[in-house]
Amino acid sequence: MVTTTWAPVPFGSGFGVDNLPYGVFRPVAGAARVGVRIGDHVLDLAAALRDEVFAAPSLNGFLARGRAAWRATRAEIVALLTDPAREAANAAHLYALAEVALQLPFEVADYVDFYASEHHATNLGRLFRPDSDALLPNWKHLPVGYHGRAGTVVASGTPVVRPCGQRKAPSDDTPTFGPSVRLDIEAELGFVVGAPSALGSTVGTGDFADHVFGVCVVNDWSARDIQAWEYVPLGPFLGKSFATSISHWITPLEAVEAARVATPTQSPEPLPHLRDTERWGLDIDLEVELCGTVVSRPPYAQMYWSPAQMLAHMTSNGASLRTGDLFASGTVSGPEPGQRGSFIELTWNGAEPLRLPDGAERTFLEDGDVVTLRATAPGPNGTRLALGEVTATIAAARA
Amino acid sequence: MVTTTWAPVPFGSGFGVDNLPYGVFRPVAGAARVGVRIGDHVLDLAAALRDEVFAAPSLNGFLARGRAAWRATRAEIVALLTDPAREAANAAHLYALAEVALQLPFEVADYVDFYASEHHATNLGRLFRPDSDALLPNWKHLPVGYHGRAGTVVASGTPVVRPCGQRKAPSDDTPTFGPSVRLDIEAELGFVVGAPSALGSTVGTGDFADHVFGVCVVNDWSARDIQAWEYVPLGPFLGKSFATSISHWITPLEAVEAARVATPTQSPEPLPHLRDTERWGLDIDLEVELCGTVVSRPPYAQMYWSPAQMLAHMTSNGASLRTGDLFASGTVSGPEPGQRGSFIELTWNGAEPLRLPDGAERTFLEDGDVVTLRATAPGPNGTRLALGEVTATIAAARA
Repeated sequence: MVTTTWAPVPFGSGFGVDNLPYGVFRPVAGAARVGVRIGDHVLDLAAALRDEVFAAPSLNGFLARGRAAWRATRAEIVALLTDPAREAANAAHLYALAEVALQLPFEVADYVDFYASEHHATNLGRLFRPDSDALLPNWKHLPVGYHGRAGTVVASGTPVVRPCGQRKAPSDDTPTFGPSVRLDIEAELGFVVGAPSALGSTVGTGDFADHVFGVCVVNDWSARDIQAWEYVPLGPFLGKSFATSISHWITPLEAVEAARVATPTQSPEPLPHLRDTERWGLDIDLEVELCGTVVSRPPYAQMYWSPAQMLAHMTSNGASLRTGDLFASGTVSGPEPGQRGSFIELTWNGAEPLRLPDGAERTFLEDGDVVTLRATAPGPNGTRLALGEVTATIAAARA
Repeated sequence: MVTTTWAPVPFGSGFGVDNLPYGVFRPVAGAARVGVRIGDHVLDLAAALRDEVFAAPSLNGFLARGRAAWRATRAEIVALLTDPAREAANAAHLYALAEVALQLPFEVADYVDFYASEHHATNLGRLFRPDSDALLPNWKHLPVGYHGRAGTVVASGTPVVRPCGQRKAPSDDTPTFGPSVRLDIEAELGFVVGAPSALGSTVGTGDFADHVFGVCVVNDWSARDIQAWEYVPLGPFLGKSFATSISHWITPLEAVEAARVATPTQSPEPLPHLRDTERWGLDIDLEVELCGTVVSRPPYAQMYWSPAQMLAHMTSNGASLRTGDLFASGTVSGPEPGQRGSFIELTWNGAEPLRLPDGAERTFLEDGDVVTLRATAPGPNGTRLALGEVTATIAAARA
């Protein structure tokens, strides 16, 4: 039976009372504050729950409270939205999404990007290092990751300016500087840390849900020409750091409980500290839309490493977690061509252009292109939850 | 003529009135606040200048004010400390360093680490990739860099717990997990961003001093065994993210004006946006001390890329700067064996142990070892300024 609410929820909405993702909104009059999405409305939590932690332009204060508080608050919101007797007092705290501005939902502390899809890592290995093994020797022993730029994580809707940078084609004698001509996306999920950990301590896979509050959709924009020239030996830098877009809404882990699955078989078996005893694979389906056409449907369930394993790895050296840390999965690519989460894979390095319904072809992104990533997860009782979408338009490079 | 001050400055101190680095201190009674160091004392700026921006446990508020304010404040402090008539009113605002606790001086936004020493990059290339060219093709065209973990930047004096991690020697069949057995340092300088820049804009080499407030000493601790196994293809991650130590004191760029020199000849000439027209090489001498013995004297003047070039590169793709961004130079290594800024270089990957005065030998660090990095710069009128030292003791790995 689907839980019902007095709040208006359109038929087929992925944002029913089983979802309730958190975000930050600014009404026409008043300051930015925290709300939860219900249908096409947002509930003003500072007003509805009379809790000052929500009267802030970021989720960080709430995230820092920890798992017991996250659970209690969610239960309180569900109770409020499902009790008809509470409609009269709370209807005025609902704002139509069309009448508010949505913002970056939290202050990003450190941003880490993983590389957890075997299909993506294999595809990229073939394209970037055609003369050697596609998967490097460490790949099945640990979730490979690196730090990205936290200061350029932006909210869905922020235009992405085509970056300039240095690049050198193998056929060029010397590098040149100019606008990227191989601007790409990476369709990912992101995991938002709420509860911090102490420097020198570790967080095991079994403690994942004590530290991670929720999940969002991430587009890790990538300038492949800049990346290919710069990335040896210290990894991606300017090919990624110009922008990383995240959805406006952070879906609590509690809401995606029905999406939990085992990861694909991991062979060799990971070392003990990396074994995911809690089944934190996630059966979440992503969708990549380019200028109105869905061009790919990457399945998160195919990801080799679970986010609990990523977290355990990231802290296995004693590195501390802070409230607001964001770690992303890396590009989600499935085994089929129509399941690849980046254009470099979808077009096989530009050799196999995509054809759009209007006849136009695309290899990498052009100015004016609009890219939208969406994701859905199984909810309770056969429902389907939507994660917040992440969209952006490509703006021309600045002179 | 050396400028004189009424404040007590021991003969030969590197912290005279021409230096005046900023830090955060906590007196026995009272909250942490911003001060400047003079001799072996710290001047309480909130009290002396009656400015609330200094009544905070971080420099960030002051850093955000920008270059004109940095200059005016420095002039004001110099005037205060050199006017004998102001001693009576301000002597009570001086605290002996022995009686205060020093803290991390600013909240780190993003942390980036470069790789700007040709000698270091050549040495590491030989050690990590013996079968290919030591310097990769991009190295002389751009300052190679990567993002590190901002949340684990710690102040001098914080013990460094030996990290655990995965490593695999070439002779091993499979990786193992355990305490690093190749724990190393990297002696670096760090540059602290004060004035932010907008997303999508660039900061040219000529605008360096408008955005960068000052310089500190950095020890970028490195677990070489973890790093060697993990770093392909996305760069260093857990081999570095367990701790990065910085000095308590941030020396304003204005104080190191006399240290400015041209970089070594850059060939090929960098692309136009990377040309350093302002001579931001720095003739700063570093010193690496292990358990009381100076084992290396790396010369910063030998660094191939200047910090102005690092900043221009880092923003050339439109990445924004935030107040509190920290970027470090990468290991400072000179051409001579006694000028190398890491133990992997000093002991040539452990093949040539260092011998300490007590007869003990070292390749990599042992538990209980104390490492202290120091740096000095030419000041005005033939004086010598000290940068704040950065020191730490190695603590045993946690079980």
